[in-house]
Amino acid sequence: MKLLRFGAPGQERPGILDAHGAIRDLSGVVEDIAGEVLSDAGLDRLRGIDPESLPRVDGDPRLGPCVAGVGKFLGIGLNYADHAAETGMDLPEEPIVFAKATSCIVGPNDDVQMPKTSDKLDWEVELGVIIGTRAKNVSEAEALNHVAGYCVVNDVSERAFQAKRSGQWTKGKSHDGFGPIGPWLVTRDEVPDPQNLAMYTEVNGHRYQDGSTKTMHFGVATIVAHLSEFMTLHPGDVIATGTPPGVGMGLNPRVFLKIGDVMELSVAGLGVQRQTVVRSE
Amino acid sequence: MKLLRFGAPGQERPGILDAHGAIRDLSGVVEDIAGEVLSDAGLDRLRGIDPESLPRVDGDPRLGPCVAGVGKFLGIGLNYADHAAETGMDLPEEPIVFAKATSCIVGPNDDVQMPKTSDKLDWEVELGVIIGTRAKNVSEAEALNHVAGYCVVNDVSERAFQAKRSGQWTKGKSHDGFGPIGPWLVTRDEVPDPQNLAMYTEVNGHRYQDGSTKTMHFGVATIVAHLSEFMTLHPGDVIATGTPPGVGMGLNPRVFLKIGDVMELSVAGLGVQRQTVVRSE
Repeated sequence: MKLLRFGAPGQERPGILDAHGAIRDLSGVVEDIAGEVLSDAGLDRLRGIDPESLPRVDGDPRLGPCVAGVGKFLGIGLNYADHAAETGMDLPEEPIVFAKATSCIVGPNDDVQMPKTSDKLDWEVELGVIIGTRAKNVSEAEALNHVAGYCVVNDVSERAFQAKRSGQWTKGKSHDGFGPIGPWLVTRDEVPDPQNLAMYTEVNGHRYQDGSTKTMHFGVATIVAHLSEFMTLHPGDVIATGTPPGVGMGLNPRVFLKIGDVMELSVAGLGVQRQTVVRSE
Repeated sequence: MKLLRFGAPGQERPGILDAHGAIRDLSGVVEDIAGEVLSDAGLDRLRGIDPESLPRVDGDPRLGPCVAGVGKFLGIGLNYADHAAETGMDLPEEPIVFAKATSCIVGPNDDVQMPKTSDKLDWEVELGVIIGTRAKNVSEAEALNHVAGYCVVNDVSERAFQAKRSGQWTKGKSHDGFGPIGPWLVTRDEVPDPQNLAMYTEVNGHRYQDGSTKTMHFGVATIVAHLSEFMTLHPGDVIATGTPPGVGMGLNPRVFLKIGDVMELSVAGLGVQRQTVVRSE
């Protein structure tokens, strides 16, 4: 299933894609794409419904983040060998974990705000993992059973804030708009191998990132199991699993985003995002 | 006002202390201590109610975290000159910002779980700041107007997870139980000078931390303004503003928490917390 949320910011309704790619309104069935709905039982219930029996949503509504009630938005740093190389840093012995503020989450095609004091704004296409059921001290073997599904994440990053402002990475990862999520939550049964998905980022039509989750250093199962040692994962938590090479910071000369730039990002099977960079309010 | 939440975990009701220190039930007035209730208008509305007119809560109920709907739980690192010295680290040029997982938040007297693989569990008494209204790019002069009130926070930390596990600090700051908050949200009108509050931590009756917010490197107004450059603060966000000297890691020899240890922490005027260290489930 491809689940999504549509409507104005803060007023999104749950939806599902039908076989023809049209949005069907799920709001008569579930309140939102969140919490218990993300469990195996909750998703099985949705699977039992024929999307064509649901009201069809006409037009081209705004899409919100594909999951609601995100308690934690975690990121994994330097998780692609070739990306670590371009940043000049060593591959870590264990996953590098950082947190993005949940207030940075936006829809997949919403504008990305350039902070007032920013001049090193960068893109990162990533495979997003959406937790379906509580996970605490789970093994790698059972880890994927706690995953509801996958989505595209743009882990937007301000490199000076991240590295030069005395903070942990959180400072450069958290501004409003730094977390486009979606367009869809694709349930895990439709992603049989999360470690073999092509992914790309284009900025103004130029392809900068062109990678695959094949070159991840720590795979999804390892990441979920590892995180669950340090904190309990809950339904709706989102994990951005790292980015392949081709970020602006890694280019020579470096390339950073400017007002008006358009980013297009995709992970195979999970849909396409497109954001315009705007000046922060 | 001293606002609080009482009842079983996940089923807390809002309450307020009356002039005699008894809990009065606010659940007929507001749904929870969260969101709009934390704005100046929301708090003024509560000020207009005579607590003695509300149902008195008998017995000695469990206290939950004093605020609900926490979207972000942020910490400030090395923010006391004398604490930075004991850790052997330099004072930062700008506030060090890290994130604690919101899933670590518990009531002020709930057990603190020692993670299965932990052997360097440590305490940190801190002044907690609870945001009342949205703050984005606010100046230091206006920053405190966005604060609903203050509370005690124990920024429980696992030092090996924090420093030795390839992560950002988030790894050592986020386990279940690592964020006792409360007992009360004390509204800011009752805390005229947040930079002059005595604070302590005792473990098994021995006083290890005995400091004052006077020795903070970056004060509350600076911290709120600074954070609002990097991310938008929302009602219910909680900021732990750093700890004075006397953490276990800073002692010679080092002292870390053991199963059964009892921590007692307080910030003057904000109440007392007491937690027992238990083995993680």
